[in-house]
Amino acid sequence: MKRIAIQGTLGSYHDIAAHKYFEGEEIELICCANFEDVFAAIRKDSQTIGMLAIENTIAGSLLHNNELLRQSGTQIIGEYKLRISHSFVCLPEEDWNDITEVNSHPIALMQCREFLNQHPRIKVVEAEDTALSAEIIKRENLKGHAAICSHAAAERYGMKVLQEGIETNKHNFTRFLVVADPWQVDEIRKQNTVLNKANIVFTLPHSEGSLSQVLSILSFYNINLTKIQSLPIIGREWEYQFYVDVAFNDYLRYKQSITAITPLTKELKILGEYAEGKSNV
Amino acid sequence: MKRIAIQGTLGSYHDIAAHKYFEGEEIELICCANFEDVFAAIRKDSQTIGMLAIENTIAGSLLHNNELLRQSGTQIIGEYKLRISHSFVCLPEEDWNDITEVNSHPIALMQCREFLNQHPRIKVVEAEDTALSAEIIKRENLKGHAAICSHAAAERYGMKVLQEGIETNKHNFTRFLVVADPWQVDEIRKQNTVLNKANIVFTLPHSEGSLSQVLSILSFYNINLTKIQSLPIIGREWEYQFYVDVAFNDYLRYKQSITAITPLTKELKILGEYAEGKSNV
Repeated sequence: MKRIAIQGTLGSYHDIAAHKYFEGEEIELICCANFEDVFAAIRKDSQTIGMLAIENTIAGSLLHNNELLRQSGTQIIGEYKLRISHSFVCLPEEDWNDITEVNSHPIALMQCREFLNQHPRIKVVEAEDTALSAEIIKRENLKGHAAICSHAAAERYGMKVLQEGIETNKHNFTRFLVVADPWQVDEIRKQNTVLNKANIVFTLPHSEGSLSQVLSILSFYNINLTKIQSLPIIGREWEYQFYVDVAFNDYLRYKQSITAITPLTKELKILGEYAEGKSNV
Repeated sequence: MKRIAIQGTLGSYHDIAAHKYFEGEEIELICCANFEDVFAAIRKDSQTIGMLAIENTIAGSLLHNNELLRQSGTQIIGEYKLRISHSFVCLPEEDWNDITEVNSHPIALMQCREFLNQHPRIKVVEAEDTALSAEIIKRENLKGHAAICSHAAAERYGMKVLQEGIETNKHNFTRFLVVADPWQVDEIRKQNTVLNKANIVFTLPHSEGSLSQVLSILSFYNINLTKIQSLPIIGREWEYQFYVDVAFNDYLRYKQSITAITPLTKELKILGEYAEGKSNV
């Protein structure tokens, strides 16, 4: 049985993404309070696999997770894109007229802004987690409280769904990365030998054309960029760090392209090579 | 007298940045509760100038502000990089031993994590704003409360500084953009004719080499990239939006490079042309 460390509780979107990614396999979840603890769980037990959100179409990149990933030395072994759909849920014996307060994670609340604006008499109170809000309302029998969480969380905690799909923008999805200890990667890959995507990070001097040279070489090798982001390097104002996600059909050509760009970059690091995302989008 | 709309209250880092940017000029601040209100203030009165944080070396880009800027139709007319240094402040009659709780903005708290870890008995409570935390403690005479805010805010609200420079990383700086109604730009620029930086945004198909072509052309024209960020476009999974900041010495060459890349991009928009950042870094 695989042990998967996630941020969040049972019924959270990380839980849903983990079960979708490992569909048909038996998995045991290790629920962590934050992303640092996900990496700590992998350090403690190298067999543990981590799952972490890396970007959301509405909220943007989780820069801190990029940095944690780079520092951790773990390798990306997969990705999953999950459509995020929120439900408005309450205690089973209550109804619309009873609700005076809604609890959820700040990002979930932001994603349901239009719905909340339509119900101005409901007080909006931030909480630590989506699923946990539902769990607390049920456990403490908080009358008058609603939570915003997944349909799965409502079912798990025996809550009544008053309305589904309350997110403002229906193109709301989150991309999760699956990460593992580098010594375990080959073992895990036995079942999954397709490698057509990679995340790399490197440093470049802040000079004319240095990035365009690197990207031109990648293009000459038929490597496709799927994401690029420059970050200033703390304490080194004249250099930039680039996080680049690439997709390719020919693994050998990709490897050659990395060899070709390495002398033009500094501190190039491959954060992982994996199969392009399974998705429920 | 210039009217400057900022997010935050008097003594906030936006206030400090505005006074540094417009040093020697008389300015009147319009304090707004959020960034949407800053743009609303400019729409209401086209003479009003806006000032908004766009990225921080620790917290990353404020993606939402990029999007607000793009949609607003305002033009960037300048930038300022402010070194962010936090102070730990309390009521003048109190001292270290009295403090049981600290209030500040979540990002400021995050930036002072090591300091807070050294004082585990002080309860950490999130608040709306740095300077406002100090103001509320003073106004309501909240004994036992400390705020994390700028030294300027402590002085303004008559608070006692217990410790300065409590941020974990001393390379903590925020870049602010100065924005104005496009019809006012020429008027404002009369005093400032140096233009050596520009922010542009465009869309590209998600295909091999499309970005490298655009960046190669910019490099052929000796245009230097200072920032690049790809964002997925909501609802158009196969296209990407790119926010690119460029620096140049020759304004004509820059204009020619924009003409050269326009046919290879979609929806190219110049968010502003301005003089490279004044800074206190």
